Amino acid sequence: MASRTPPVAPKADRPARTPAAAVADRPRRRLSVDERREQLIAVALELFSRRPPEEVSIDDIAAAAGASRPLVYHYFPGKQALYEESLRRAGQELAGRFEEPASGPLSDRLFRVMGRYLDYVDSHGPGFAALLRGGSVAASPGTNAVIDEVRRAAHDQILLHLAVPAPSAGLRLTVRAWIANAEITSLEWLAERTVPREELQLRLVQEFIASLTLTAAREPALAVELAGFFADERPDGPAGRLVRELAGLFSVPGLAESVAALAAPALAPPA
Amino acid sequence: MASRTPPVAPKADRPARTPAAAVADRPRRRLSVDERREQLIAVALELFSRRPPEEVSIDDIAAAAGASRPLVYHYFPGKQALYEESLRRAGQELAGRFEEPASGPLSDRLFRVMGRYLDYVDSHGPGFAALLRGGSVAASPGTNAVIDEVRRAAHDQILLHLAVPAPSAGLRLTVRAWIANAEITSLEWLAERTVPREELQLRLVQEFIASLTLTAAREPALAVELAGFFADERPDGPAGRLVRELAGLFSVPGLAESVAALAAPALAPPA
Repeated sequence: MASRTPPVAPKADRPARTPAAAVADRPRRRLSVDERREQLIAVALELFSRRPPEEVSIDDIAAAAGASRPLVYHYFPGKQALYEESLRRAGQELAGRFEEPASGPLSDRLFRVMGRYLDYVDSHGPGFAALLRGGSVAASPGTNAVIDEVRRAAHDQILLHLAVPAPSAGLRLTVRAWIANAEITSLEWLAERTVPREELQLRLVQEFIASLTLTAAREPALAVELAGFFADERPDGPAGRLVRELAGLFSVPGLAESVAALAAPALAPPA
Repeated sequence: MASRTPPVAPKADRPARTPAAAVADRPRRRLSVDERREQLIAVALELFSRRPPEEVSIDDIAAAAGASRPLVYHYFPGKQALYEESLRRAGQELAGRFEEPASGPLSDRLFRVMGRYLDYVDSHGPGFAALLRGGSVAASPGTNAVIDEVRRAAHDQILLHLAVPAPSAGLRLTVRAWIANAEITSLEWLAERTVPREELQLRLVQEFIASLTLTAAREPALAVELAGFFADERPDGPAGRLVRELAGLFSVPGLAESVAALAAPALAPPA
C-alpha cells in the first residue's frame, strides 16, 4: 500500500524498492518512466502525509526521491499536481479501508472500519488535516473532488451494509451527517488527543447507531430494519455496550421519572 | 442588522439609507468616510450572500453601491479584503443569533436558536456555502479565522446553557461534533432540500439531546446534570417528542426483545 512506502526513498544509485525493481535481475538499471512516476508519487505522499503542503517543496521531494529537481518537473508540472496526485492515491487507499465483509453484527463491522480509518488518520493526518478542515492553501477543485469521492465511498459503503431497500432522503442525510461527525471528531482528536483512541472508535460507532435509531423512530420502514440489526448484535459489541450504558442512566435519581413523564404525558401528575 | 440591508444600495445622488443619513437634514450631502465604508461592506455582504465570491466582481459591488470602481479601491485594496470584511460582519451577525435567554427547557432554547440559524443559512447560504464546505477560491487564513470564531461562539453558547461545572473533554468534543453535524446537515439541506425545514430544525435539536445523553451515559457527573435537564423538559418540546418517538420503537416486532437481551445478557435465553 502506498502508505507503507519507507519515508526516505531509495537513492538513484541504489535499486528502487518498487515491486518491479525487486524482481529485476539488473540491480543498477534505471527506473522506467512508469516506475519513476510511481516512485515520485509515493515519496510525495509520504512527505505530504507528515507535513502541510506549504512546508513541502519540490526540492524536498526530489531529495527524498534521489532525483533532480528538473527530473521531478519532467514528470509533474509543479507541486500542486504532485500534491493532487498523491492525495488521489491517499483517497483511494482510504476508500479501500471502508470495505468490510457484509456479515456479523452491524456495529462490529463499523467498529472494524473505524479502527482502520483511525489508523489512517493517525498516519496521514498531519498533512491532510488542513485540507479537510478547509482553507488549505493547496485546496483546489481537484482536491475537493478527491475529498468528495472519499465521502461518497463512505456513504455508499454504509448504505451497502445497511442494505435498506430504497433508503430515504432522511436516512441518506443521517449517513452524511455522521460521516461529517466522524471527520471533524477525528481531526479534533488528532489535534488534541483529549480522549483515548479506543474510546473515540467506540463512541463514533455508537453515535452512528444512535443516529440510525433516531431516524428509524421517524420512519416505520426503517424501524423494521432496525429491529433486524439489533437482533444480530452481541452484548459485548458496540451496540450492546451502548444499550447497557443507556440503561445505566435509569439509576440516576429522577431521570427515569422525568423520561417516563415525557413518554406518557397523560400519566404524569398535574403540575 | 446587516442582512436586512436592501439588495440594491442607494444611488450616490440619493441620500444613503444608513441611520446616520436618515437623520441628516441635508438630503444631498455626501457620505462620510465611515458611512461610505459601511455602505460598501453592506452592499458586498448582500452580493456575497447571494453568489459565490468568484461570481462577484468589484464592478458589481461598485454598481450596486452607486460608486465608481476607483472609489471602492480607495476604501479596500481588493475584492478579497471586501469579502473578508463582509464575512466578518456575517460571522458577527450569525454569532449574535446564538444568544438566547438561559431560561426554560434546554431543547426549546436550542430549537429557537436553530430556527434563527436556519433562517440565516437560508438567506446567506448560497454565497457562503462554498466557503464552509472548504476549498472556496476565497478561502484564506482570514476567512478561516472568521469561521473558527463562529464555531467557537456556538460552542461557548452551548456550554453556557448546559451550565455544567468543569465540562469534560468528552463533552466538549460532543458539542464540537454536533456543531459540525449542524453545519454539514444544513449545507446538504440547502443544496437539496430533501427534508422539510421544520423537520431539519427538530432533528438537529434531537440529535444534540441524543449525543448529550450518550456522553452522559459515560460520565456520571454529566448524568446528574442530564437528569436536571430532562426534569425541565415539556412533553411537546423537542426532547419530549424524541422520548415518545423512541418509545414508539418498542412496538416494532422483536425490537424490544433484542434491546432487552442486550441490556441484560444474563437474562437472555442461551443461543
